[in-house]
Amino acid sequence: MNILRRGRLSIEPDEDIMRFTSSMKADQRIFNADIEVDRAHVVMLREQDIISADDCSAILSGLDRIKREGISALDTSYEDVHIALEARLIELAGEDTGGRMHSARSRNDEVATCIRLSLREELIDLMEEVHDLITALLDTATEHHETIMPGYTHTQHAQPTTLAHHLLAHANAYIRDIARIKGAYERTNRNPLGAAAFASTGFPVNRKRTTELLGFDSAIENSMDSVSTRDFMIESMSCYANLMISLSRLAEELILWSSSEFDFIELDDRYSSTSSIMPQKKNPDIAELVRAKTGTVIGALMSVLMICKAIPYSYNRDLQEATPHLWRATDTVRSSVRMACGIIRTMKIKKENMEHASGIGFMTATELADTIVRSTGIPFRTAHHIVGSSAKAGKAPSLADLDRLSSEITGRKLSDMGLSEENVKEALDPAENIRKRAVTGGPAPEETRRQIAVLKEGLVHIENDIKLIHKKIDTASGELERTCQRYS
Amino acid sequence: MNILRRGRLSIEPDEDIMRFTSSMKADQRIFNADIEVDRAHVVMLREQDIISADDCSAILSGLDRIKREGISALDTSYEDVHIALEARLIELAGEDTGGRMHSARSRNDEVATCIRLSLREELIDLMEEVHDLITALLDTATEHHETIMPGYTHTQHAQPTTLAHHLLAHANAYIRDIARIKGAYERTNRNPLGAAAFASTGFPVNRKRTTELLGFDSAIENSMDSVSTRDFMIESMSCYANLMISLSRLAEELILWSSSEFDFIELDDRYSSTSSIMPQKKNPDIAELVRAKTGTVIGALMSVLMICKAIPYSYNRDLQEATPHLWRATDTVRSSVRMACGIIRTMKIKKENMEHASGIGFMTATELADTIVRSTGIPFRTAHHIVGSSAKAGKAPSLADLDRLSSEITGRKLSDMGLSEENVKEALDPAENIRKRAVTGGPAPEETRRQIAVLKEGLVHIENDIKLIHKKIDTASGELERTCQRYS
Amino acid sequence: MNILRRGRLSIEPDEDIMRFTSSMKADQRIFNADIEVDRAHVVMLREQDIISADDCSAILSGLDRIKREGISALDTSYEDVHIALEARLIELAGEDTGGRMHSARSRNDEVATCIRLSLREELIDLMEEVHDLITALLDTATEHHETIMPGYTHTQHAQPTTLAHHLLAHANAYIRDIARIKGAYERTNRNPLGAAAFASTGFPVNRKRTTELLGFDSAIENSMDSVSTRDFMIESMSCYANLMISLSRLAEELILWSSSEFDFIELDDRYSSTSSIMPQKKNPDIAELVRAKTGTVIGALMSVLMICKAIPYSYNRDLQEATPHLWRATDTVRSSVRMACGIIRTMKIKKENMEHASGIGFMTATELADTIVRSTGIPFRTAHHIVGSSAKAGKAPSLADLDRLSSEITGRKLSDMGLSEENVKEALDPAENIRKRAVTGGPAPEETRRQIAVLKEGLVHIENDIKLIHKKIDTASGELERTCQRYS
Amino acid sequence: MNILRRGRLSIEPDEDIMRFTSSMKADQRIFNADIEVDRAHVVMLREQDIISADDCSAILSGLDRIKREGISALDTSYEDVHIALEARLIELAGEDTGGRMHSARSRNDEVATCIRLSLREELIDLMEEVHDLITALLDTATEHHETIMPGYTHTQHAQPTTLAHHLLAHANAYIRDIARIKGAYERTNRNPLGAAAFASTGFPVNRKRTTELLGFDSAIENSMDSVSTRDFMIESMSCYANLMISLSRLAEELILWSSSEFDFIELDDRYSSTSSIMPQKKNPDIAELVRAKTGTVIGALMSVLMICKAIPYSYNRDLQEATPHLWRATDTVRSSVRMACGIIRTMKIKKENMEHASGIGFMTATELADTIVRSTGIPFRTAHHIVGSSAKAGKAPSLADLDRLSSEITGRKLSDMGLSEENVKEALDPAENIRKRAVTGGPAPEETRRQIAVLKEGLVHIENDIKLIHKKIDTASGELERTCQRYS
Repeated sequence: MNILRRGRLSIEPDEDIMRFTSSMKADQRIFNADIEVDRAHVVMLREQDIISADDCSAILSGLDRIKREGISALDTSYEDVHIALEARLIELAGEDTGGRMHSARSRNDEVATCIRLSLREELIDLMEEVHDLITALLDTATEHHETIMPGYTHTQHAQPTTLAHHLLAHANAYIRDIARIKGAYERTNRNPLGAAAFASTGFPVNRKRTTELLGFDSAIENSMDSVSTRDFMIESMSCYANLMISLSRLAEELILWSSSEFDFIELDDRYSSTSSIMPQKKNPDIAELVRAKTGTVIGALMSVLMICKAIPYSYNRDLQEATPHLWRATDTVRSSVRMACGIIRTMKIKKENMEHASGIGFMTATELADTIVRSTGIPFRTAHHIVGSSAKAGKAPSLADLDRLSSEITGRKLSDMGLSEENVKEALDPAENIRKRAVTGGPAPEETRRQIAVLKEGLVHIENDIKLIHKKIDTASGELERTCQRYS
Repeated sequence: MNILRRGRLSIEPDEDIMRFTSSMKADQRIFNADIEVDRAHVVMLREQDIISADDCSAILSGLDRIKREGISALDTSYEDVHIALEARLIELAGEDTGGRMHSARSRNDEVATCIRLSLREELIDLMEEVHDLITALLDTATEHHETIMPGYTHTQHAQPTTLAHHLLAHANAYIRDIARIKGAYERTNRNPLGAAAFASTGFPVNRKRTTELLGFDSAIENSMDSVSTRDFMIESMSCYANLMISLSRLAEELILWSSSEFDFIELDDRYSSTSSIMPQKKNPDIAELVRAKTGTVIGALMSVLMICKAIPYSYNRDLQEATPHLWRATDTVRSSVRMACGIIRTMKIKKENMEHASGIGFMTATELADTIVRSTGIPFRTAHHIVGSSAKAGKAPSLADLDRLSSEITGRKLSDMGLSEENVKEALDPAENIRKRAVTGGPAPEETRRQIAVLKEGLVHIENDIKLIHKKIDTASGELERTCQRYS
Repeated sequence: MNILRRGRLSIEPDEDIMRFTSSMKADQRIFNADIEVDRAHVVMLREQDIISADDCSAILSGLDRIKREGISALDTSYEDVHIALEARLIELAGEDTGGRMHSARSRNDEVATCIRLSLREELIDLMEEVHDLITALLDTATEHHETIMPGYTHTQHAQPTTLAHHLLAHANAYIRDIARIKGAYERTNRNPLGAAAFASTGFPVNRKRTTELLGFDSAIENSMDSVSTRDFMIESMSCYANLMISLSRLAEELILWSSSEFDFIELDDRYSSTSSIMPQKKNPDIAELVRAKTGTVIGALMSVLMICKAIPYSYNRDLQEATPHLWRATDTVRSSVRMACGIIRTMKIKKENMEHASGIGFMTATELADTIVRSTGIPFRTAHHIVGSSAKAGKAPSLADLDRLSSEITGRKLSDMGLSEENVKEALDPAENIRKRAVTGGPAPEETRRQIAVLKEGLVHIENDIKLIHKKIDTASGELERTCQRYS
Repeated sequence: MNILRRGRLSIEPDEDIMRFTSSMKADQRIFNADIEVDRAHVVMLREQDIISADDCSAILSGLDRIKREGISALDTSYEDVHIALEARLIELAGEDTGGRMHSARSRNDEVATCIRLSLREELIDLMEEVHDLITALLDTATEHHETIMPGYTHTQHAQPTTLAHHLLAHANAYIRDIARIKGAYERTNRNPLGAAAFASTGFPVNRKRTTELLGFDSAIENSMDSVSTRDFMIESMSCYANLMISLSRLAEELILWSSSEFDFIELDDRYSSTSSIMPQKKNPDIAELVRAKTGTVIGALMSVLMICKAIPYSYNRDLQEATPHLWRATDTVRSSVRMACGIIRTMKIKKENMEHASGIGFMTATELADTIVRSTGIPFRTAHHIVGSSAKAGKAPSLADLDRLSSEITGRKLSDMGLSEENVKEALDPAENIRKRAVTGGPAPEETRRQIAVLKEGLVHIENDIKLIHKKIDTASGELERTCQRYS
């Protein structure tokens, strides 16, 4: 009978129950972290004189071997990686030695520590991948400061803008996503080890030491909190959800833009599929999947929220069910970011089609109304009325058209109040429209150039932050490695 | 280059893109169904003279071999099982023959057909498993018509009831779950094959024939609807969600009942775990996981709803992302039902503890108020006031207590109005309380016996329904088998 | 102090607590139902001789007055409509009479009964509204059997179809929605009254009688089940979610179709808005809101699922929090259906634009490949290869183009194998494409006419079902009315 | 016809459509913010010489009057507060003046600004309310450093702990919630005004100035991003969701603890309800509603996520549908925090019951195993085996029991290896158990005292942060007020 159940329980569960209960599959994600946690724990036990030097050395050697063998060598009839690993250690080193590793510890603090360690790596990678996506957007934007395209509200032609301006809108959103992920990282990178089952332990453990050896920023103070909370998981997945929403909106645009109707871009063949029946088809499947995977990530968040709802403190087995959703969501959001980046980097932009579309739908109406305000001094709301009435005709109005409508509405001709043919012509020119919108955040080329410069500064800050994080973890990792070698 | 992409596209996607795009993993669930669909389609093509007898025979033989080899023999560099299978067939039979199987068909109608065929089996199995759970509940209830226990509202002792009455509440809920699943089954078991990409086909296909050969109840009329809708998937998963909510409530009770505080049951060792650190622990892990998996299933439903939101007709690649959630949810709900059944069947019921708890918390107060109404003729609301006031003392009142309170509240003694010591004593006896509640649906033993009889009739109907379903499918399956043999 | 709390509790909650606790706002939805439930209950109490004829008459008169006064006349310091109504009755009729109404009853069974009665009406109305939407779709389809438009997969031009065929895809989906709602109706229209708090009652109530007087199809058997379950609510909201998904997909298409790029339809001014700044804009706001309200309804479903998760039996106050989500979702889905119906009925269809778009994107490639198969006898997969290669050129190929590609790929010219100029020309004609797709479910005009006939039969069945439901409820309502008059 | 529609559109929507479209109800939440935004915008227009001094003065006076009249004085036939307010201004000041307010602005940037201003206030209030809840937990914990209670895992007695230790676990979680809310605040308090419809404006607006006047921390750079994103809303609601999960877990414990079975606390009457039928009942309704409202908040998050999914840039009407969910969730989370605080502050703690329960369930088994390890030197896993076997007997073992089991398992008696009667006795004493757990985060009284000190420091930091935020907003508000007075 297994080393855990042999004391308190008499019968083994059957295979259907084992499958229902086991977390071995999801635990592949934390196998390496588990070894690290074991090593840091054992080192600390030795330094606090809780285990002997010989036991320490034997356990560390056993762990090395287990690491080399990999998780696939473990007995899968155990319910999780922690106990399977301990059982293997006992097999290798004998119960009299291996049976000491779990002193002053529980799987409750152990698994929380493993998840945090593994998630920390994923969050760093994700920040780097979002950084790459932003870079791809900026690189593309840099070449399209003057590429005029329709700007949309309500999926309707609204006002002309440029592709640079449009792509920078997305880039700014992703900058905020990184800021949020960084917050999640800070609340993830904290050490629950030493909390044991939830009540800490009577052994004189040193939580500062394991915090240091594992590269955590600090320990989680309260031991019951340490094993009970999954708020860091919910926070990370909330960041994912927010990021996926942004990606889904970008994906939607890529899908629309590559349709026959828009025809603004052609996706690279690598990011396209064809049809099993319709030989002419070139489909934006990757973008569609990015859009769809938004549902996958958000459903995973909903699962974790629902699992955590109203479970009393401290640890409950329910928490085991939450973790696979975290990994699923993590993989999904990371690959979606990479796909978006690849699509942006490889797509062909059909400038002429974008420009041609900018002439359709009387998108310069706002500028025309503004021009009327500036030339004639009538209020905006009245100018809006006149230009709106002219739009019913379905085409851009002449000065004569405007005069006629103005007479009907206000009793006076606009040309009598200062509006010239020249004014109207300029207002109706999309390129002129854009040049005029040079205020902070606007599409004028000089302004989008400035926006890119600001974003690039932001990226440099992010790079520095990530470097510091890497350095701290690498330092800890080196210290742990050296200490283990010293003790084994 | 692969047989699909070689025409329209020039570059192959890299591995990261392939992993993002491929549905091969989830397609394991539909491999067998895909073979059946291929066979039925090919038979129909032959009967409509769209392919030759020789080609038909060769394709059917190829399919037999592919089935024997299993999905693991297919080339996983293809994006899905349909095209991988076709590629293997072409390998085996040559393009001049194997290349004809996909005539008059698209993966769009093919995959929808495969999902429906596979889901149909799952729904039948699920109905049978829920049936078993109900049976377990009825069997247990049968032995506990007179096992008095506290009935709760707001997790507070409310009125005495029996374990039979309590378990039957759950049993009734699951009966409705089966009715809902049956509705989902009816809307799942319909045939989209022949819709091709969405516009049907110019080949003279016979949709009635494939409907018959595959055991579908009818064809889905409109070909665009056939490939676009996933409403049957949403409906099934909604049924799962509803069922999991019921299971989570049962699981919650099992967890509470096995706590030290309640101590109403002891779970079987098979359905318990212990702790890696706390040697005395016997934990209701399976019940906790059933509770938690509610979140898994409902998150999966949310994923599918979100994926399907606002995607224009007809087929979009987004739909591929929905299917794995269906299978995940299906496996989860089915195993959860089986676990609940096993727990119920094996748990030890601590009758005495239940009965002892029934004496705590003045649960007979309602019956005392009712008795006062019947004996004295005062209105219920006044009796509620008197008994409620007596409850502040924290124990069941004597006739003298009631007289004192009644005098304060109404100016008259209840004993003067007809309430006797005997009345009070009877009202305060939990067993007597239960015996009195013999109206339809109540806990009186004679009534719970009647309820079981009604439920058993319901189960018989369900069994008959399931038998008919099996018979229809088996008949179709036999007919397909025989026809294939005839043609190959 | 209030009539409920005066017995057991000493302090009144402050206003912040009251606001947190009160359901008075949501209870407006069940005020009328509550009066009906009270009347049926009181009539039954009289008939079972639980209350006297005089008390019965006085209570019924009081209820008439309260109904006339409306819910706004009730004391809102009570936590719900049931107890506020009882308090008002006691005010009107005295405690000695009014205090008897709540005999043999609890708010737990009362509120469940009220929700079911109110929801029943909503479900009927919803079925009628979906019926109207289907009719609008059929009416429009009837005029567009020959209106050619691009059919899409992946938002890409795929194969030509007709507007009739496209609209019928939606109509078929809504037919299934009605079938699901009907299932929900059947499980909603059942009577929990008589379950009291959950343990039924010692009074000799007659549950059959209240079932009959309130027009329920049957009583819910088990009394604990009666007050604990909200599965009928989850089921109804699941139907809403499924329906909203279909509506969101229709809305998405309406939004795309009214864009400058598609320009297939013009929405009626009533279903459009303009911009506060861009005077030329005509925006599909109503369709956008239908799309958005999908999120509202599905979030409401998520709320109710989460509220119900893992709450032990029987009644918990949590259930109160579920009901407002039901009404919010109900209002949203019903108005969304009405809006979709209105948009369809009033939109202007731009036939020529649809037809013009059908010539773009080589949508006839599938038919061309099929034609090659039929003319030359080469396999479909090979024809797909040839036609797919020709599609890279971005335009429909000539026979010469095809011959050249065929030579490269197969070593033979297609014209040598039987493909004629005439064949190619016919295959490339969208109208001819459609005419050929006359199999069940296809877009050929004769076939879409047949499909409409089938759908219309379906609508007649639905109408008959709804008529029967109305008749049953009206009969019960008349019987209750007459009985009340007799007793008062 | 209304001032917006009169230009472009001809027909007015009917009442059903208006109700569907109008945001007037939700806009009550932003009415005050809208006035502030109007004032800041008008001041800036004047300072940039876009409008005249006279017009500025007249508009500011009109706005003052509109503010005094309140939102209820506005014409509700308009679709939102912005246009209704402008219409009222035009009524008061004439179109020639009032019609100028909307220059260089759109409702798209206006509404985003209003939501951010209003949400900012809510987030500050929420941080203060969570601060109060933490204070209540610390105050209660301070009195219970030595109140022994069972610590639970899997809702099973696990190890003894103290009430202080348990409450501090919750307090620590809420500290992190405040940190998250602060992050959301920082990304909320940014200025979108000046983005106009999305393309900024040709008028020379000064976005820095409105940023300063409205107390924003900075402007949102890109104008398309400004009106399109709702990520700040999703982030805030994600924080709510996470916080509600913590509250739901606290609520669940309060419900369990006030049950007859646990009987650890008695809730104050203000936070309790009784039953309409069961006069003895005292129910934890407020705690149940806190638990349930978790579903309300998370459903609202789901709604907003789903609404935002895959809508293309820039503004779409869908975004209007998101906002009411934000306010609903905000109200719910804020009141839930207040309720939790009130319950904690007023509940009566039954120390003796907690202590009595601590003797049940052999919770000292872990310490006994640890003691055996320390006294005898055998490995933990072996000690776990011995103690676990002893637990089957259902009571704490004597030294003799342990010796017997040890002999069976290891072949040696523990007493021979150094375990004494004294060791066993000490290990089995719950108070002694707790005293021994004095490592960081443990339940030993000295350690929980230290934890409280750390948390109090954290609270002081939070108070200082909130003070700074208030100061910045007050300064801006004063500056806006003074400037308006100067200009009017």
